[in-house]
Formats: sequence, structure tokens, C-alpha cells
Amino acid sequence: MKIAVLAGDGIGPEIIAQAVRVLDVLKKDGLDIEIEHGLIGGCAVDVSGEPYPDATHQLAAQADAILLGAVGGPKYDVLPRALRPERGLLAIRKALGLFANLRPAILYSELSEASSLKAEVVAGLDILIVRELTGDIYFGDPRGIETRDGQRVGFNTMIYNESEIQRIAHVAFQAAQKRNHKLTSVDKMNVLECTQLWRNVVEEVSKEYPDVTLSHMLVDNAAMQLVRDPKQFDVIVTGNMFGDILSDEASMLTGSIGMLPSASLDSNNKGLYEPIHGSAPDIAGQNIANPLATILSIAMMMRYTFNLEQAAQRIENAVRKVLAQGLRTRDIVSQGTHILGTREMGDAVLSNL
Amino acid sequence: MKIAVLAGDGIGPEIIAQAVRVLDVLKKDGLDIEIEHGLIGGCAVDVSGEPYPDATHQLAAQADAILLGAVGGPKYDVLPRALRPERGLLAIRKALGLFANLRPAILYSELSEASSLKAEVVAGLDILIVRELTGDIYFGDPRGIETRDGQRVGFNTMIYNESEIQRIAHVAFQAAQKRNHKLTSVDKMNVLECTQLWRNVVEEVSKEYPDVTLSHMLVDNAAMQLVRDPKQFDVIVTGNMFGDILSDEASMLTGSIGMLPSASLDSNNKGLYEPIHGSAPDIAGQNIANPLATILSIAMMMRYTFNLEQAAQRIENAVRKVLAQGLRTRDIVSQGTHILGTREMGDAVLSNL
Ligand SMILES: CC(C)[C@H](C(=O)O)[C@@H](O)C(=O)O
Ligand SMILES: CC(C)[C@H](C(=O)O)[C@@H](O)C(=O)O
Repeated sequence: MKIAVLAGDGIGPEIIAQAVRVLDVLKKDGLDIEIEHGLIGGCAVDVSGEPYPDATHQLAAQADAILLGAVGGPKYDVLPRALRPERGLLAIRKALGLFANLRPAILYSELSEASSLKAEVVAGLDILIVRELTGDIYFGDPRGIETRDGQRVGFNTMIYNESEIQRIAHVAFQAAQKRNHKLTSVDKMNVLECTQLWRNVVEEVSKEYPDVTLSHMLVDNAAMQLVRDPKQFDVIVTGNMFGDILSDEASMLTGSIGMLPSASLDSNNKGLYEPIHGSAPDIAGQNIANPLATILSIAMMMRYTFNLEQAAQRIENAVRKVLAQGLRTRDIVSQGTHILGTREMGDAVLSNL
Repeated sequence: MKIAVLAGDGIGPEIIAQAVRVLDVLKKDGLDIEIEHGLIGGCAVDVSGEPYPDATHQLAAQADAILLGAVGGPKYDVLPRALRPERGLLAIRKALGLFANLRPAILYSELSEASSLKAEVVAGLDILIVRELTGDIYFGDPRGIETRDGQRVGFNTMIYNESEIQRIAHVAFQAAQKRNHKLTSVDKMNVLECTQLWRNVVEEVSKEYPDVTLSHMLVDNAAMQLVRDPKQFDVIVTGNMFGDILSDEASMLTGSIGMLPSASLDSNNKGLYEPIHGSAPDIAGQNIANPLATILSIAMMMRYTFNLEQAAQRIENAVRKVLAQGLRTRDIVSQGTHILGTREMGDAVLSNL
């Protein structure tokens, strides 16, 4: 089990350090884990002049799984477009063909107060967003800013071909089979031909999954329904751009994005695992960041890449116990609970492992 | 004051009938109002074979303002793309150059229970979304579905030129000047060049509005912040596609989209006014639809097209009084309030006018 660890910027190194301690425990308990560290994002630009240096690509390409912290920070905002830290993220996704982004939005019962939504609307929330990650307007050509007839014009291309849609649809249907057998595909077919094809192809693929109930929803309606009644959803599948927006909206429904991991898989279940939150430069280096989303990313890694469901649940249970013990980092604290620092939260998880 | 009335499909005719009664009162009280009726959407397809027939275009082009109900219904789902009712909507926006879509998301204190968000998060919510309405990926070329290398490919073009961005930016800054002097421009500049230009141009235009505080937000973050703390916003300006998603999300924060009007203006403040909700075919013809969003659309018409602030407030106050009297249509009913039908709600507004 070769794992490439890319801590990145901001709070990245701190939260990754706690997750690596979890990997160390799994290793001590018998898993054949080999860890190598690499650079991505701003710290990579600092050292090599590029947000996704070739050395990191070599490392990541040879690994079975990648654990990533977070990238970006104000220091890098002045860099030209091609060198911005988030380019590192886009580059590794594309270079490794990590087309299937799985983003669970789960509300832990202990944290239900944290949501800005009424308790009855979100209690027990457990949805999975499957976002296509290597296509769409993110990568389409032509793109750019040009002067035409004396005016600047900015343009991008939204594009999907049927095989790209098929493969993400299969991932989504199979995820739904392991859950509540309900899949909602989100598009804007009433306006965009690209997403009309999306709907057609998802419909075709559905024939292979008679045990999954498929429905379609327009993206504007989906943005509303997530607010109105998020528990109506089981699995949502959508393109890269809509997925970016809806998955962030969905995660904020929980009020505790410091708790949410994500997986980005290729067609062989090789995956990149990362917390969905950002690099939070304002709190970096203060030992107050929440390491739980990163630790839960390892659970997803065990489940999806290594097919070790037991190891996954062991980690998830340890996290649940920590919450049940009333232990919290600052971002998820509430009355009657106890604040821990980043490292101390790592300790707490380890002692429950 | 020439007003074209396009009732459309579903509940359109019922809610429009109540709004026209309000126009009749204004006329009786001295406003020189002339009303002509026309067809749009599914009912226009039924009669003329087109969702936006030329006769309707002539009528709308000659009017000072247009009042629209809603379009669409299951009966029309089988029609080919070019004949779908919503094509009528897209066509009238484009044909009349209605580039500035103003969508207030206001939570009436009497209806604060209706929201799925906690009362303290949304109490007093009053934000205005300014959505560009005649550009972006909605209208960009090339677009279509083609077979390339033996595979179907779907594609659309996101595109803005600087004058399109400038004019909507001016509308948004001026709206902010009349409110709390705060403008948030939403883009995805870290991925899309088109929206990088958007950010640059909005920044340039801001020099003319030193009294408005401008900030920029990425669309994924905006989708989160609307859920987390919507009251941080005053005016939001964004492109057609992001505006479609975010304005629906924002309106659902109020829990009462039966209350929300909208305006779509050209550069001379000629405007199309419509409720933001849809045609609700499931409840059409039952005298239970909420006519208040349509009635409030007339208030917006008085304010933006006819510059009659007093008439606008007269209508808005009548609606507030109706709510204060505990009168509700079915969609906004709560304990201790009284249910009225569509026509009876019209009566109630009229008697408070
Ligand atoms: C940083 C950015 C390029 C990225 C994206 O838009 O995909 C992020 O928002 C995400 O969702 O992982
Ligand atoms: C019906 C549809 C074409 C339309 C849009 O996407 O603009 C609608 O969602 C709206 O927001 O007015």
C-alpha cells in the first residue's frame, strides 16, 4: 500500500500530521503501508516554481493512493494564473484521471446544532454527491480572454462526450446500489445541449441498474431542494461545474465542514483523498484546525482504494466516539463540550482507535 | 403606460387575474394604464405553433412593461427543444434586451417560520440578486450535440464581452447605492477565464462607485455562504448561469417563494415582471395558488419602469397588511392563520389597497 502524502499549504501540514499518525497505527497493526511525502500547491511553487512539479507527479503516479491536505494562501494570490496553487489540484486530477469525486455530506448527530438549518430538516442527513472531476467547462477548449472588435471577450467551453458521462454514471449507480438505491442526476437540459446529452446518457446507463430509482433534476431546482428538504436525496450525480457548487452547498448544510472528507477516484479505484475544506491560512500554525476531515479521508481511502471496509469503520467509529465523549476542535464546539487543539484531537482519535 | 400581460400556462392565468385587478385599481385611481393580453409558452404553442409568436413580440416590443405569469407544463414536455415553453421565456428576454434580472429574496417577518433555516439565521433577510440575463452560456455559440470520432459530444460556450459585464455592473452598483452600499460579485475566476474577465471589469466599474463596498466571492463559496449566513449579503451580482442557481437557492432560504417577484430590465428600464415561482401545473385551476408574488411584481413594475415609488409602496404595504391580518394562501399557511383561495387573496389585497 503505497501512499503519497501531499500536505500542501496553510493548515495542511498540521492536519496531515494527525492523519499520518492514524496511518502509523494501521501500519503497526499489520497493514503494509509505505508513505512518501511530496509537494503540491503554493509550497511546491516556493520550492520548484510549479504548483504540480514533475517529481510530485512521479510520486503520485506510482502510489496506490494519495492523501492531500489543502492548497492556497494569500501569499500566492499575486501569482500568474498558471502558477496558482489550485492549478496543482486541477493538474493532479487531470494527470491521474481522477474523474470520480465522491463527496459525502453527513450530519453527525452530536453536531446537529452546528447547522444553520432547523434540526428536523437536517437530522440524520446522509447524502453522497458524485461529481465528475476531469471534464466539463473546467478543461474544455477553446478558452481564454481575447480582444475582438476592440473589446475584451472572455470565453470557456462546456463539453462532455458520452464515454465521460457513462463512466461517472456507472460510479454513481454503483454507489447508489450500496446505499438507498436512489439516484438524482442534475443537469440544465432545458438550456444547455451539453447537459441534454448528460441526461440522455445517464438514462441509457440506468438500464443496467434496474434496482436503482433514477430521477432527473434541473440544477436551479437542485440548489433549492438542497435547502428545502435535503433528506429527499440519497446519491446525486452531476458534472464538474454544477458539482462544485452543489457539493459545497450540501456540505454547508451540515454546518461542520471541518468533518467532511472526499475521494477522487480513477477507473481502477486509485484515489486522491482530501478534506473538503480549504487551507484556512488565517488559522495556520496555531494548533486549532480540525484534523477530523483529513482523518476521515483515510477511512474513505481504506474503503475505496484498498477495499478494507473494517479498517474504514474502525477509523469512523473512533471519530464518532471522540464526538460522543464531547471532544471538539474550536470550529465545532458547542455548549457543554470540551475544546481540543489539532494535536490533542489526534491524540483523542488515536486513543479510541 | 402600456402594459402587455402574458398569463402563460398552469396557474399563470389565475394569478395574473388577481394582479390585473390591482392594475385596475391603480387605473381607477388615476394612472393612465392600458392593458393588452398576449400568449407565451405552452398556450402560445397550442395556438400558433410557437412559444414566442411574432404577434406577442410585437405586443411586447410596443409595451412599456410586461407582466408575465409562468410558462410550462407536463403536456409540453414531449415537444422538441425549440418549441418548449421555456424557449418563449429565453426568446423574449433576448429579443427585448432584458439583460438585468433583479431578484429580491426577502423574508417577511410574518412568514419566518416557513424557512427551513433557523429563525435567527434568516430573520429580516433582505438581499437582492442582480443576474445578467441575456448572455453567458445560455446564449453562447457554438453549442449543440454532435458525433465526433464515433461518439456523441455535447457542448456549449460560456462567453461575455466587456460591455455586457459593464452594463450589468452599473445596474448592480446603482442598486447597491439605493440599499446598504455593499456589492458582492460572484465568479469562478480561479478556473474560468470568462469569469476572470468578469471580475476585472466589475473591478474597473467599481471606480465610479466609491460609496459602494465591492467584494468578490467564488461561486462555490457563495453557495455555501448563502446557507451559512445569508444576511452577510446586500446586493449580489453574477452571470446568467451562476445567477440562475444562486437566485433560486437564495429565494428558497425564505421558504416562501410564492411571495417573491422579479424584474428583468433593458437599458431604458423597460421591464418584464414575473413571480419567480413556476407554473405549478399540479395545482392549476383549483383557486389555491398564491397570487402575491405576481401582485408584488406590479409593485416592482411601478418602481423600476414607471418610477412611481408611491404606487409601489402602496401595493407592498397592502400585501404586508394582508399578512399581518393572518391571511394566507395554502403554501404559506401556519398555525393560527387563515387559508384563502387565490381569488379571495386578491380580494384581501384589494381591500387593503
Ligand atoms: C480550488 C478549485 C479549483 C476547486 C474546484 O473548483 O474544483 C475546489 O473548489 C474544489 O471543489 O475542489
Ligand atoms: C426556465 C428556465 C429557462 C429559466 C432560466 O434558466 O433562466 C428559469 O430557471 C429562470 O430562472 O427564469
